[in-house]
Amino acid sequence: MSTDVEAIKVLAAQLRIDSIRCTTAAGSGHPTSAMSAADLMAVLLTDYLHYDWDNPDLPNNDSLIFSKGHACPLLYAAYKAVGAIDDAELLTLRKFGSRLEGHPTPDIPWVEAATGSLGQGLPIGVGDALAGKYLDKLPYKTWVILGDSEMAEGSVWEAFEIASHYKLNNLVAIVDVNRLGQRGETMLGWQTDVYQARIAAFGWEAIVVDGHNIEEIQQAFAKIKDSEKPVAIIARTEKGHGYSKIANKNGWHGKALGKDQAIEAIDEISKSIGLRPDVRVDVQKPEDIKPTPQAANGNGKLPVYEVGDDVATRVAYGDALKAIGLADASVVALDGEVGNSTHTETFSDACPERSFEIFIAEQQMVSTAAGLQNRKKKVFAATFAAFFARAFDQIRMGAISQANLKLCGSHAGVSIGEDGPSQMALEDLSMFRSIHGSTVLYPSDATCTAALLLQMKDLDGISFLRSTREKTPVLYESSEEFSIGGSKTLQSSDADKATLIGAGITLHESNKAAEALKAEGIAVRVIDLYSVKPIDKSTLVKAAKETGHLVVTEDHWEQGGLGDAVLAALANSGVQFKFSHLAVRDMPKSGKPAELMNAAGIDAGHIADAVRNA
Amino acid sequence: MSTDVEAIKVLAAQLRIDSIRCTTAAGSGHPTSAMSAADLMAVLLTDYLHYDWDNPDLPNNDSLIFSKGHACPLLYAAYKAVGAIDDAELLTLRKFGSRLEGHPTPDIPWVEAATGSLGQGLPIGVGDALAGKYLDKLPYKTWVILGDSEMAEGSVWEAFEIASHYKLNNLVAIVDVNRLGQRGETMLGWQTDVYQARIAAFGWEAIVVDGHNIEEIQQAFAKIKDSEKPVAIIARTEKGHGYSKIANKNGWHGKALGKDQAIEAIDEISKSIGLRPDVRVDVQKPEDIKPTPQAANGNGKLPVYEVGDDVATRVAYGDALKAIGLADASVVALDGEVGNSTHTETFSDACPERSFEIFIAEQQMVSTAAGLQNRKKKVFAATFAAFFARAFDQIRMGAISQANLKLCGSHAGVSIGEDGPSQMALEDLSMFRSIHGSTVLYPSDATCTAALLLQMKDLDGISFLRSTREKTPVLYESSEEFSIGGSKTLQSSDADKATLIGAGITLHESNKAAEALKAEGIAVRVIDLYSVKPIDKSTLVKAAKETGHLVVTEDHWEQGGLGDAVLAALANSGVQFKFSHLAVRDMPKSGKPAELMNAAGIDAGHIADAVRNA
Repeated sequence: MSTDVEAIKVLAAQLRIDSIRCTTAAGSGHPTSAMSAADLMAVLLTDYLHYDWDNPDLPNNDSLIFSKGHACPLLYAAYKAVGAIDDAELLTLRKFGSRLEGHPTPDIPWVEAATGSLGQGLPIGVGDALAGKYLDKLPYKTWVILGDSEMAEGSVWEAFEIASHYKLNNLVAIVDVNRLGQRGETMLGWQTDVYQARIAAFGWEAIVVDGHNIEEIQQAFAKIKDSEKPVAIIARTEKGHGYSKIANKNGWHGKALGKDQAIEAIDEISKSIGLRPDVRVDVQKPEDIKPTPQAANGNGKLPVYEVGDDVATRVAYGDALKAIGLADASVVALDGEVGNSTHTETFSDACPERSFEIFIAEQQMVSTAAGLQNRKKKVFAATFAAFFARAFDQIRMGAISQANLKLCGSHAGVSIGEDGPSQMALEDLSMFRSIHGSTVLYPSDATCTAALLLQMKDLDGISFLRSTREKTPVLYESSEEFSIGGSKTLQSSDADKATLIGAGITLHESNKAAEALKAEGIAVRVIDLYSVKPIDKSTLVKAAKETGHLVVTEDHWEQGGLGDAVLAALANSGVQFKFSHLAVRDMPKSGKPAELMNAAGIDAGHIADAVRNA
Repeated sequence: MSTDVEAIKVLAAQLRIDSIRCTTAAGSGHPTSAMSAADLMAVLLTDYLHYDWDNPDLPNNDSLIFSKGHACPLLYAAYKAVGAIDDAELLTLRKFGSRLEGHPTPDIPWVEAATGSLGQGLPIGVGDALAGKYLDKLPYKTWVILGDSEMAEGSVWEAFEIASHYKLNNLVAIVDVNRLGQRGETMLGWQTDVYQARIAAFGWEAIVVDGHNIEEIQQAFAKIKDSEKPVAIIARTEKGHGYSKIANKNGWHGKALGKDQAIEAIDEISKSIGLRPDVRVDVQKPEDIKPTPQAANGNGKLPVYEVGDDVATRVAYGDALKAIGLADASVVALDGEVGNSTHTETFSDACPERSFEIFIAEQQMVSTAAGLQNRKKKVFAATFAAFFARAFDQIRMGAISQANLKLCGSHAGVSIGEDGPSQMALEDLSMFRSIHGSTVLYPSDATCTAALLLQMKDLDGISFLRSTREKTPVLYESSEEFSIGGSKTLQSSDADKATLIGAGITLHESNKAAEALKAEGIAVRVIDLYSVKPIDKSTLVKAAKETGHLVVTEDHWEQGGLGDAVLAALANSGVQFKFSHLAVRDMPKSGKPAELMNAAGIDAGHIADAVRNA
């Protein structure tokens, strides 16, 4: 049964007034984008949301994702209306030290994902909804409030298609079509019929409403519970609705009202309901249901590889993920339609119920991971390392969301061979190094891959493991230990004339170069730099001091990868050393791996020459 | 009038056979993905494409963009069929040194854009079609051949929406729905009706055909010329069609046939048409029409700023773009619905006919630029620097495409203030430094911004200019010259105890620190490092040698930006120096610019302390 329309109008008026008040107090912000969605929010809070504000970690809480992050004054006004924050805190909006930032972040306990880069809320919601429907099997709903400008982002359409593919009828998109973007009319303006046709074609129930007509909104929400499809409520609204001087007028995006304007606006809104609203809404609490436990049936024993056997680290990724995932039922794997290349399929074959195919939609793959980890899953997502570039913005936002994302990129560098540069990751180390708080791992053999993957499972933040397409010899016994932030010195002596530093395929080239040099009577040290970030500074400083010459070789562009990481680690070490940096400098072509590594100057011959020529 | 069906069948058979032959010779590649689209390609080549193979730069040539790049054996077989390459070259596929790579690149003169990262061909085609319809006003058509797996990429839907927004009825998407992706069935399989509904909802004419029925294909192509909308031909096909043992079977993606299989397949295909095909098709040449010239009516004089005035460099971007664009009619500007923030609108107001609003679809914005530059436009595209992360894969592929992209990112770093970290570019310098052949510019004042922008106009490759939200004082007279790869030493003396290096907002903080230190009797050098890549190595080495202490301050994460660039420049210089690196290390929050710069430790006070504490 729906709440009385008049009561909802009072709440909506208060949400508008508080959106104005806090932005005017801040002197900046987006009150008009908040005002357009106030009626939608009022209905949601009053009759449909299930959330325990005192227990944001409750597994059966609904998810409320505010994709139009700039309109967060409305979200914060809602927090006040439900009693989660007080008025004094509301008025700290955008001030230094306040958790009520210009766009929502999880520093606020009821925010599960940072928003502000548009078009990411619904994709994350897909992850939450997948967890509810298929893993935890809980009845919570995921509500996503979107703006209309962000409907232009392709990432939103990836979310629509994946949500319908997985029949996520526990996911609701509320689209606030206020017609006006930052600089004028949006691509579709008020063509709600076009939005409806597109969303319906993507397999959703799509309902158009007047977003300021409470009864219409209520009727639309009432349809959600019986839908077998995900539901979109497409609401025609006015930006700045409630204050006639600016409602539906261009030029009012991202502008706070002046004090006099604010008083006038609050007065007009109050008059429309006949009182100055001061209400509190009691949001329904969810049923106290625990997640359905997933079956774990493995012993967690990592795969064992024989030293000297040829095993691609991408194969070890699959083997290890299966072992780890069988033993820990919170592990989930995502594939971007390349599971037979990344070897995610090894896990998926063993644990199909915890594997999701996201098809060739890398942005959605990363956002799905972000949503699933909101629900306490340990999510490994893999594709060709090059194609994580497609999701850089989602990964960047993941760091702001304090998300734990475990990403594996295969097919790194020119050593993939014939497929050519479009498939070669040559900037992925740079990309992941520059992500805040990230961990960047680049194992050189199967044993190390498995050992690092096990540690990744419980790492906080964004972690990335780069795997190699080609088979490479196993270097380490299964008893070998690998710490994140460590390295392995494969050979060293007092006579070392240089230190060869590599990871992945280039470590093996470094080993071959060391052999060749040894035959010539030149001793060199070899370091396996499997942990690119954090980096083993002390070992590097020691090597520079003792050998005086570092030869860093990487299957990556010269910027942002191993070379830059090593130099940064050695800054201020006080050690003088010669630095040879062998990296990819010209655009590679198709060819055999050995031909391409030679052409790029990163094979054993070039490494040995760098030592000989020093 | 359409060509005889039997003749087209012979050509299609030859295309299949050649796709098999070259991949079998290579021992790798994607013959089955080529075979599915052979009938579509045969009709296109025979009766619809207009292209002069001897003059690929002809302005009225059609564009043929092969978005499903892995299926390029079909494209190369077509090049042979039209006489552009011979059979011997066809058989060099994927071999080291051959221009026929595993995915097409513009090393082949008839390839205008590299493909292989899926979902980018149609977005680029939008740029070509915009140029034809609105700028050059030429009747050429843009044909894009897509696979079905890539229809999952959001970037494709950005292209559909923008194409219909601009009524690009000169753009044709040919979707090869062969049902099977790399690892199994695609999301939609053979649901051509669903593709049709979605594409039609996005404003296109969407026609479903049996992709192996020549008459049906011909009928669909015949409808193109009268359509007022962009047209999509959605073809139900079989992967590996023609060789019954593998047709429509899973497990045959990216696999060449063995020699015996190839012989059997060629035999079956030949029998189906009653002969071993050996034909050449004469593609129609385009009418020899020149592009409609655009009006240029400016004197090209750059804006002049008074030293000491406060002008945001983002404002100078708009001013300078207007001046440059008025004088050079090949200049085109793209906006991602933030033109009033980036100040692209200054140009757009002056030259609306050369400005395109791409809305909040950054991937499409970059791809549109890639398409427009195929048509000799000098394209400047701007958004918040943080949001170029959304298009990193497109930018990466742009480098492989040898595209000239001029990108400007505003709102860099914590100094934007209250909007919070989602809007702060803190990894953009790292991203652009790691792009092959890129130029990375970061001017500190309005004069420098204008001067660099003028040079960017004629730069090859990917160039990026980072602008600043906040107003900063003009430092340079309009007569000052700035070379790419240079720097400016703002103050220096023999007594300098340190060198303060900054760019953008941090140069101004460095200046303030130098003032404060001077008052304490400490002389320091100050360098404006406006050219981050290439970098002014000699000036940096000299400063390190003469002052012994470099203080690099940047409004960017510590990885991949100014600090890494400076260290890389100084490697092997033989100079010992102390290195103080002031960069953003903790996740910023909302606040005033000064508060945030102080919190991040990158303001004048922290810079001065770094010198005092040395």
